[in-house]
Amino acid sequence: MIRAGIVVTGTEVLAGIIADRNGPWLSERLRERGIQLAHILVVGDRRADLRAALDFLSDLDLVITSGGLGPTADDLTAEVVGEFAGRPMVLDEALEERILAILRRFRARWRNYSDEALRAGNRKQAIIPEGASILEPVGTAPGLIVPTPGPLVLVLPGPPGELQPMWETATETEPLRALLARAGALEQRMLRLFGVPESEIALTLRALEQDGVPLERLEITTCLRRGEIEIATVFAPEAEADYEALAAGVRARHGDSLFSEDGSSIDELVAGLLADRTIAVAESCTGGLMAGRLTDRAGSSAYVLGGLVVYSNGAKTAFAGVPAELIERHGAVSPEVAAALADGAIARFGAELGIGITGVAGPGGGSAEKPVGLVCFSIAHAGGERIDRTLQLPGDRAMVRERATTVAMHLLRRLLLSLAR
Amino acid sequence: MIRAGIVVTGTEVLAGIIADRNGPWLSERLRERGIQLAHILVVGDRRADLRAALDFLSDLDLVITSGGLGPTADDLTAEVVGEFAGRPMVLDEALEERILAILRRFRARWRNYSDEALRAGNRKQAIIPEGASILEPVGTAPGLIVPTPGPLVLVLPGPPGELQPMWETATETEPLRALLARAGALEQRMLRLFGVPESEIALTLRALEQDGVPLERLEITTCLRRGEIEIATVFAPEAEADYEALAAGVRARHGDSLFSEDGSSIDELVAGLLADRTIAVAESCTGGLMAGRLTDRAGSSAYVLGGLVVYSNGAKTAFAGVPAELIERHGAVSPEVAAALADGAIARFGAELGIGITGVAGPGGGSAEKPVGLVCFSIAHAGGERIDRTLQLPGDRAMVRERATTVAMHLLRRLLLSLAR
Repeated sequence: MIRAGIVVTGTEVLAGIIADRNGPWLSERLRERGIQLAHILVVGDRRADLRAALDFLSDLDLVITSGGLGPTADDLTAEVVGEFAGRPMVLDEALEERILAILRRFRARWRNYSDEALRAGNRKQAIIPEGASILEPVGTAPGLIVPTPGPLVLVLPGPPGELQPMWETATETEPLRALLARAGALEQRMLRLFGVPESEIALTLRALEQDGVPLERLEITTCLRRGEIEIATVFAPEAEADYEALAAGVRARHGDSLFSEDGSSIDELVAGLLADRTIAVAESCTGGLMAGRLTDRAGSSAYVLGGLVVYSNGAKTAFAGVPAELIERHGAVSPEVAAALADGAIARFGAELGIGITGVAGPGGGSAEKPVGLVCFSIAHAGGERIDRTLQLPGDRAMVRERATTVAMHLLRRLLLSLAR
Repeated sequence: MIRAGIVVTGTEVLAGIIADRNGPWLSERLRERGIQLAHILVVGDRRADLRAALDFLSDLDLVITSGGLGPTADDLTAEVVGEFAGRPMVLDEALEERILAILRRFRARWRNYSDEALRAGNRKQAIIPEGASILEPVGTAPGLIVPTPGPLVLVLPGPPGELQPMWETATETEPLRALLARAGALEQRMLRLFGVPESEIALTLRALEQDGVPLERLEITTCLRRGEIEIATVFAPEAEADYEALAAGVRARHGDSLFSEDGSSIDELVAGLLADRTIAVAESCTGGLMAGRLTDRAGSSAYVLGGLVVYSNGAKTAFAGVPAELIERHGAVSPEVAAALADGAIARFGAELGIGITGVAGPGGGSAEKPVGLVCFSIAHAGGERIDRTLQLPGDRAMVRERATTVAMHLLRRLLLSLAR
């Protein structure tokens, strides 16, 4: 078993001002490669704390650091890693020239930086632990692979746009390739379900074990994310049959809810099903987020004709053609108005499919009959097929609005599948 | 100086499947209280790794753990903390009864759980380190305050909705109150700027220091977030005058860009300025996100009349009244079309203010003349005042779309301020 640790540096990450994207991303990469991650440590730009983090991880096989490679005084990573490795810091003059060449390209934009400031910054980034391998800069900071008496230390820059390609480069280098070869490979699979509580999945896993399905060679993590359940499983290739038995068991018990077995997301599935069709949205409580989600994907302009955000009753009538007396009789939040919104989206945009959403996002506006979280959905096809649903969604305003778009995506998928049959 | 560490437990967090919200939230709370955070550690549900994390933090004054307090076998935190504290685990029968009373309320929803399963889970959650103080459950898991020979350990549940109120409760308890009293209080201030590169801020800080503004008693963190620059500063009350000198220096150099000195966000400022007015949106490349952002706030239905997502040229003409020949002459992405969209939003919704956005979000659709990232904005008032802008935004499709909504919020604020004058 090869074990690794990740050290994320940066006062702004430790302070909670910016979210760390590198720890989770590297964690997934390590899992794919069959390496067990022991810890992620977030440390500020303080020398002693960074050194303590490295010392804490010194029993592991691999340590990856992110950040702290910039030109300013609080960028300490290379130096502290050098100290940890017991390697003196040396100036790599060829590297200095390569970094300077990169900086010169940006010069025009940085008119306020003097030539000396650029050169001083450059020099610091070219001072590296003796014997370290250099990973060429993606931005301006080089990465490093530093052998130590303990773990191999991979030093990567903080911006995810630089770190991610540099990780790929690093896996091609000799020291990391040797380590990865020892780790072997693990399979990683994902089942996604919608419309089933997480507790049911826990019961299913227990029931499968009682029925003799061997789960002990599978590392199973279930997780509720954006209203969907994800069952992520990691296993060694020889446990493939165990995984198939698990997947079959989940399929047998939750076939209606299981919508993805190959890792694809609901957005990807819906985009695939929408090819060669057209769609429009008329939404109230989601206030533009439904159209925003559909147009999130590159190429969505091929099938999304547009959307209407109809918050007021007047706008529902004027733009989506919802009869005023329908709103008066049933209320703005009603299955009837949701259906009229979907039909209106189809009629007004000349679309094949229409989505209508109306609900009480809160925190105000709820009543005993129509509480906060009540949302009416209608997904309609110009040919007459439709799915109408009214659901009580949990959470605060932001969660109700986001969940509503997830529900609509799943209802849309169901309608598209029935049309394809 | 009181120093703290945070241990976030949970395999799904370590695996990168769900993002940790507790570390950043607790980090901000500690900073407000004048406590220096040394490390955040993320550990999986493995006994030895959790114990190693506690041992690593044993030199600190306070350790806060989140998660691992549930009823299942992989919930280990209470037990491992007890072991770390050298305190035997004991069943608190009164606590067991209180948890059972909570569970009975949920029983109707959990028809699949047997009475024994409930009771067994309950019992595990009521077994606590001897001598620990109990923090009453917000959900079903109690929190704990555990004295140890080293740091005081505060054990909190993983769901943010439970952890956050329980932290507030914990700060009222005797052991934590004593610790916080020793920490004193730090002031925390935020300056927000828009439309200035981060490097300019770095130069400004250096220039202020050279001009004799004392910055050494201020802990200043600058951070680029969603296209805005945040300057977060923490200081002891006696450095108040130093902070005022810093703020005055930033104001003098970047008065045009400085939009918030009291921590309020652009969304809050715009919402305040929109009171008693009405607004509508006609957007293309942002595909609903602009309306979605305006309607994000509770109470926004008072001023947002609605929005049009007009992706196709036909929809721009049919819904927003953009003359077809205008699109033909200038192209769908042009200042002229943006202005017509804003005017169309005003006319069609009968709104006082209109926002028009059209641009190339990418990754496809760019040209030499109109590259990916080019976005045209128009913010118009029915009375004739308007602000039109065309900008080249950086980043990928998602970033261009999000940045475009931020730019539009700032242009809208500027127009609203000029109307108020």
